[in-house]
Amino acid sequence: MKRRLQKVGQHLKEAGIDAAFINGKENFFYLSGFHTDPHERLIGLLVFPEEAPIAIVPGMESGQLREAGWQYEVIGYADHEDPWAKLGGSLNKRGKTALSVLGIEKDVLSYGRTESLLELFPESEILDVAGILNEMRVIKDASEIEIIRRAAELADYGVKAGVEALKAGVTEMEVLAKIEYELKKKGVREMSFSTMVLFGEKSGQPHGSPGDRKLQKGDFVLFDLGVVLEGYTSDITRTFVYQSANDQQKEIYETVLKAQKASLEMSKPGSRIGDLDQTARDIIESAGYGDKFPHRIGHGMGINVHEFPSMSHLNDGKLKEGMVYTIEPGIYDPAIGGVRIEDDVLITKDGYETLTNVPKELQIIE
Amino acid sequence: MKRRLQKVGQHLKEAGIDAAFINGKENFFYLSGFHTDPHERLIGLLVFPEEAPIAIVPGMESGQLREAGWQYEVIGYADHEDPWAKLGGSLNKRGKTALSVLGIEKDVLSYGRTESLLELFPESEILDVAGILNEMRVIKDASEIEIIRRAAELADYGVKAGVEALKAGVTEMEVLAKIEYELKKKGVREMSFSTMVLFGEKSGQPHGSPGDRKLQKGDFVLFDLGVVLEGYTSDITRTFVYQSANDQQKEIYETVLKAQKASLEMSKPGSRIGDLDQTARDIIESAGYGDKFPHRIGHGMGINVHEFPSMSHLNDGKLKEGMVYTIEPGIYDPAIGGVRIEDDVLITKDGYETLTNVPKELQIIE
Repeated sequence: MKRRLQKVGQHLKEAGIDAAFINGKENFFYLSGFHTDPHERLIGLLVFPEEAPIAIVPGMESGQLREAGWQYEVIGYADHEDPWAKLGGSLNKRGKTALSVLGIEKDVLSYGRTESLLELFPESEILDVAGILNEMRVIKDASEIEIIRRAAELADYGVKAGVEALKAGVTEMEVLAKIEYELKKKGVREMSFSTMVLFGEKSGQPHGSPGDRKLQKGDFVLFDLGVVLEGYTSDITRTFVYQSANDQQKEIYETVLKAQKASLEMSKPGSRIGDLDQTARDIIESAGYGDKFPHRIGHGMGINVHEFPSMSHLNDGKLKEGMVYTIEPGIYDPAIGGVRIEDDVLITKDGYETLTNVPKELQIIE
Repeated sequence: MKRRLQKVGQHLKEAGIDAAFINGKENFFYLSGFHTDPHERLIGLLVFPEEAPIAIVPGMESGQLREAGWQYEVIGYADHEDPWAKLGGSLNKRGKTALSVLGIEKDVLSYGRTESLLELFPESEILDVAGILNEMRVIKDASEIEIIRRAAELADYGVKAGVEALKAGVTEMEVLAKIEYELKKKGVREMSFSTMVLFGEKSGQPHGSPGDRKLQKGDFVLFDLGVVLEGYTSDITRTFVYQSANDQQKEIYETVLKAQKASLEMSKPGSRIGDLDQTARDIIESAGYGDKFPHRIGHGMGINVHEFPSMSHLNDGKLKEGMVYTIEPGIYDPAIGGVRIEDDVLITKDGYETLTNVPKELQIIE
């Protein structure tokens, strides 16, 4: 964390920013090692170009922040105290009574909290520092990759547990419950998003909700799930067919698989990110399903299950070693159902590695 | 929803606000009936004093918004499109090219999104409308109470499932997995926060993390959990002792229980909210544990598991019929462990009703 804080400090110095207030719980974790969900309570790190940083947390979490390794100033506050006033007091002691340029995460810090911060430093100009943190976070170091690898293995395990739980008449929610039970027994405390188990026509909704739909012969079965492990996420989608697949289902499946593999093959340092989406999109369009692939090919993944880079066809950025992202093309038809195939991908020195490894050839579950 | 939208419109008119941009997913749900987690994508409702509102959502969720009953304009956007530009276009068509006063949820809408909104209406003054929505949401109507009641019953069921799973040597995570499995089999898709199962000294951390700690004779066992049901939450805490309780554990337990009951007894229309906290705090302080109760007595609960009213001793507001909140005093000692007892409370016409109903007398689990 010390190295990361120093690096942020360097970036702030280069950008002419006198202090950055980091409020996002993901960036807070990235820089402090402490993973917390503050609900409506304020957490923040005030990071300076060269001075030691300050953390502000609810008082009852100060101890956990220390245990996570935070060696700098901590401002703890009780529910009835004004955290901004305490922060102001601490800054006064340091002689920090004015800052010309103040950095915030513009898409995270609320307008109201920005106002509170500006009451402490009314003359400050506001700049966005999200880019600095995103730029750092987009390249995963070895310790991060090691955790994400284990998170992805658990996602694989979740899909396998789901397949094991399939039987005629079982409901989506029953299968979902079994998947999460098996994962929690392995120590998973939190899923990285609401687990999706969708049968038949319900798989045709890219953001459908699992419910009482019972499994029937001929159904698509779509699993989309991931876990949070030690602050990092994973995200896998696999689609199966139950007992029998018709020709149209096979065609849809093979089209998605072809698109997914083509996009995977372009995953290496130097590739234009947007080309991964475009290549998959071209394959799906030329198979006649262009209007049934309504989302981008994927998203960066790390502390957030959705983070940078955005894997949209408009992204002109280049892939770099250490990036981790998903590739997840899909075809959705509200009548027939949908297929999505998603892997977590790590860019290596000269190519890629998939961190999720459940086989992808069409499987008809008996 | 129509009635709620009309009511917001009236409040806006009274406050002299020309339009309010509602971005919080909870308020979005409250006014549209559509419960979604947009991750980093934009959702919003633009509500006017007298005109029909506009919803803006990712294009692939437009259908679900309609299914939830939204009868007004919907702007759907694809990942590569700029939602603000589309919103601007729609407002231009309506002839809305200037608004003097624009309402936002100041503690929800990010600084960056506020800037985007202000690019559409550069001359607007910004006012906070969170208070209008909070004021409406703090009083639950019959349909909301009916859902929260069922959510609280499921929380009770979760605690019972946890007690069933206790046996010497079981880990916190194994018990947690069993609780959530049993709840998910009952159709629960999402917990209202990370379930807590803490044994022994670990229960002495108000925000501890379940892990590999094994259950031993003489341990406190603390469960804190809740579910999300049809967009509404529940939240219960119960503490048990495994196999044998010593005198100090009994004293701590009885002190917390006395504080909890005293606070409950004050729950009726017209009571000053802060007095509920103060009464419990006085009991805990006079028993000599004042420094071991570091949080407020509770929080309002509804669509958010933490919402208004804040049950702090500083709150001078009065309880009103239809309010729902938690009462959850606790005593935490990092060496001995901790006790917290929490109920969900509904203010009725002339008193209160607890929606969570697992017995609260000290139970020694065999």
